[in-house]
Amino acid sequence: MTNSRYEYVREFERENILLPETHIIIRVDGRGFHKFSDRYSFDKPNDERALKVINLSALQLMKQMPDIMMAYGDSDEYSFLLRKQCDLFERREFKLITTFSSTFSAYYQYYWNQECSDKPLSVERLPTFDARAVVYPTDDTIRDYFRWRQVDCHINNLYNTTFWNLVVKGGMTPKEAENRLIGTLSSDKNEILFEQFGINYNDEPEIYKKGTTYIRESIPDTTGSSELSKRQLDRLQKKLRKSEIKELHGDLIKDEFWNSRPWLLS
Amino acid sequence: MTNSRYEYVREFERENILLPETHIIIRVDGRGFHKFSDRYSFDKPNDERALKVINLSALQLMKQMPDIMMAYGDSDEYSFLLRKQCDLFERREFKLITTFSSTFSAYYQYYWNQECSDKPLSVERLPTFDARAVVYPTDDTIRDYFRWRQVDCHINNLYNTTFWNLVVKGGMTPKEAENRLIGTLSSDKNEILFEQFGINYNDEPEIYKKGTTYIRESIPDTTGSSELSKRQLDRLQKKLRKSEIKELHGDLIKDEFWNSRPWLLS
Amino acid sequence: MTNSRYEYVREFERENILLPETHIIIRVDGRGFHKFSDRYSFDKPNDERALKVINLSALQLMKQMPDIMMAYGDSDEYSFLLRKQCDLFERREFKLITTFSSTFSAYYQYYWNQECSDKPLSVERLPTFDARAVVYPTDDTIRDYFRWRQVDCHINNLYNTTFWNLVVKGGMTPKEAENRLIGTLSSDKNEILFEQFGINYNDEPEIYKKGTTYIRESIPDTTGSSELSKRQLDRLQKKLRKSEIKELHGDLIKDEFWNSRPWLLS
Amino acid sequence: MTNSRYEYVREFERENILLPETHIIIRVDGRGFHKFSDRYSFDKPNDERALKVINLSALQLMKQMPDIMMAYGDSDEYSFLLRKQCDLFERREFKLITTFSSTFSAYYQYYWNQECSDKPLSVERLPTFDARAVVYPTDDTIRDYFRWRQVDCHINNLYNTTFWNLVVKGGMTPKEAENRLIGTLSSDKNEILFEQFGINYNDEPEIYKKGTTYIRESIPDTTGSSELSKRQLDRLQKKLRKSEIKELHGDLIKDEFWNSRPWLLS
Repeated sequence: MTNSRYEYVREFERENILLPETHIIIRVDGRGFHKFSDRYSFDKPNDERALKVINLSALQLMKQMPDIMMAYGDSDEYSFLLRKQCDLFERREFKLITTFSSTFSAYYQYYWNQECSDKPLSVERLPTFDARAVVYPTDDTIRDYFRWRQVDCHINNLYNTTFWNLVVKGGMTPKEAENRLIGTLSSDKNEILFEQFGINYNDEPEIYKKGTTYIRESIPDTTGSSELSKRQLDRLQKKLRKSEIKELHGDLIKDEFWNSRPWLLS
Repeated sequence: MTNSRYEYVREFERENILLPETHIIIRVDGRGFHKFSDRYSFDKPNDERALKVINLSALQLMKQMPDIMMAYGDSDEYSFLLRKQCDLFERREFKLITTFSSTFSAYYQYYWNQECSDKPLSVERLPTFDARAVVYPTDDTIRDYFRWRQVDCHINNLYNTTFWNLVVKGGMTPKEAENRLIGTLSSDKNEILFEQFGINYNDEPEIYKKGTTYIRESIPDTTGSSELSKRQLDRLQKKLRKSEIKELHGDLIKDEFWNSRPWLLS
Repeated sequence: MTNSRYEYVREFERENILLPETHIIIRVDGRGFHKFSDRYSFDKPNDERALKVINLSALQLMKQMPDIMMAYGDSDEYSFLLRKQCDLFERREFKLITTFSSTFSAYYQYYWNQECSDKPLSVERLPTFDARAVVYPTDDTIRDYFRWRQVDCHINNLYNTTFWNLVVKGGMTPKEAENRLIGTLSSDKNEILFEQFGINYNDEPEIYKKGTTYIRESIPDTTGSSELSKRQLDRLQKKLRKSEIKELHGDLIKDEFWNSRPWLLS
Repeated sequence: MTNSRYEYVREFERENILLPETHIIIRVDGRGFHKFSDRYSFDKPNDERALKVINLSALQLMKQMPDIMMAYGDSDEYSFLLRKQCDLFERREFKLITTFSSTFSAYYQYYWNQECSDKPLSVERLPTFDARAVVYPTDDTIRDYFRWRQVDCHINNLYNTTFWNLVVKGGMTPKEAENRLIGTLSSDKNEILFEQFGINYNDEPEIYKKGTTYIRESIPDTTGSSELSKRQLDRLQKKLRKSEIKELHGDLIKDEFWNSRPWLLS
């Protein structure tokens, strides 16, 4: 940008730098995806192709941004964990969140066009995502963050599975199904599924019950150090970029997941 | 989102509410568009179709968001002026900027596929935009903001026009053209264009020299009031949504533009 | 501060710069003044000497800080209006509010020792004040801010006057007086005062009913300009410093106060 | 505060909540203490009574606020470390910093009147302090913070000791002493002191060379837990309030200080 007598207006800009030495988590969240899934006739309770599109988008973002150590998502949302020493965009919040929301939306549209070319997107309802960044100062809070999202996935999926079975196989109207489920516990829903539809919820695919986790494998030793030279940092970035990314659909709630992957929080 | 013992992690979220009774300007800015324009072989100095794509995106965003009173853009950036009483997303900054960056990127990809289907996008280089919000408390600062962007457009376009004529018609390497222009004033560049290439810069298309402005026309009287009832607000939104949007390529620097459209800043 | 290998810890500091071209209001508020007034046996409902102490403190602060255009206070609080172009501490919030809280507390203790030397302060209960800064972008919001505080003063003083008459002259316990006043309107309290104690609330001293306002008089013409040279700024500061400060106990709610003093909001 | 139609002005208030699960450090800093020390003829390079006044103020603040685990200060500044789970004022920044600046200033004036009654304070130059809060997410950054301040104390004290010996005993003007010291290393200053004034800097009092540290001793086991019931919290506060506070003038740079007091950072 060039200089002029009007440039003083930049003094009104404000910038939030996310606290150093903390883990940044950025969560992208589909905007109006209830209507989006109606408009493009998603399978209920889970649309396999839409799930593939969002997962491809998350994976691609992780490939592009070597600072992402882990991603977890389900339905229309994804959370990305950046490494503690990450200095992407000098930790400027607006750059981080608008880059994530913009790039994730771009990938989603791209992969949608590829995977669902039979359902072309209309300009009135394009897929878009908002994004927010939160910093967590301790390992425990990071673990609990992902536990929170996975419990949320479980609760929603159990609800949706029961709801849509009541509607599709049970012949209820959506309103009736909703009323049927008011006040029910998990055990009640499990029972409805089993008694009425012969479905054992435990046998449902893990990807629906547990969501999808991507983790970056085989991290170089230097990750922990906070005082890397420019050269060491370049080398680290290169290694991170080349490191394998693994897809899982397992449990994030037990300590085992975290204890066996110490580099995620190092 | 559902309740669980892990939900306490939400206490780490922070939210910035943009100051009420001020004008919000949101500027979206192409990420890495220098490389993007190389990758997709943009015409130089200005690519007519790319310009059409970004303008269609801005116009569509303005149609979707009735709170946008005016938009101004050129090259790979666009600034949107929200009306003073705008309460979109309760003025939460993260929602506003990630929605703008995400939606603008979505439109750009959509219109690109439509307008430039001969240059299909590759997943390695999709068009994305960051976004920032700034609040301005006075009419003068708003006017000066747009003046700042239009002066910037002028300076860049004059430079680029001269640079690319030196390269394309003058046979210079980019490096030679760059060196030739170091330290030159506007008058020098005008002279190069005229003497060497017979181009009178004043005759260049207004859309390149002045950028593109969209303004919302015929605003209802109630805009100024800060105490609208829910019902009045709905009616206002409906009127704004239906109001005509005009495209201009004129001067924003002289007072005339602003004085003749008092409703923009009301 | 000196350089050392540990100085990187400064990168964790965050700074909030208050938006330019807005009016800053800083309100100082007594901490635990209910207990303070008990501990030092204030006269009820109003202690003349304590009022003198807080007013002297506010006046002295205004003398020291030429950027303060107006002050308004009652009970244990004071609000200070800074001029729109004020650049005190480069508008850094932490500097502004901690300087105001610290300096106001210092003056209060100083004048207390002078005015109430018969009630020496104990280290367990020294007078202290917190402070907050708020920026207001329009003249109307500034006017309404002071109206808010003056309405608050009126409501509190009417309540306290009635309450303490019920206790002191009416022989009620504080609990009985409190219960007597639950659900009463202003008119009810006026009637209690008149019927039971022969007091016409309108005849109470203005300083109790309306609080105290200090305004800086005779402002130089240059105030409005936002582009002062260093030299013009020094001259303005000098004039502001020498300008007369007037004490009022009048109405801030009607427009008349503001319309007749345009320089306050210029 | 009472309700009125003007109360909407509160919507312009902004609040910063300091990140949970981090250590808060609040540093108070004397405002204009160079002039203050001139006005009240401080002994140079160190005024024993002024040091006593600031230390009494810090100790008293620590007694009043059980959440302060440690304090460190020298010259005209003091840093206070709050315990990690501290929820004082719900971690609202403005409350924390204005309470610290205000209370510290109040104590300073109080103890000054007691200790230096031969030098009565003038209203034109009362002692005041600004304050800022910084949050640190890791133990290492906390340790380095206090190391930073202690290195700073050492460098300043060595400079001042040499400077004032050159002036007072060496007969130099302040300007001459300043010029003499430009570009000198620590070793040079040590040599000047020894060669010219027979002073072995190592023999200077520890309180001048190392500053003053207060630490809260004998902490109950529960400190570490982040999930205290209201009752446990009350009990913890009571224990903290009664716990002994120790004064030290020792080394904070070596790990030994921190390793032997794990409860400070627990």
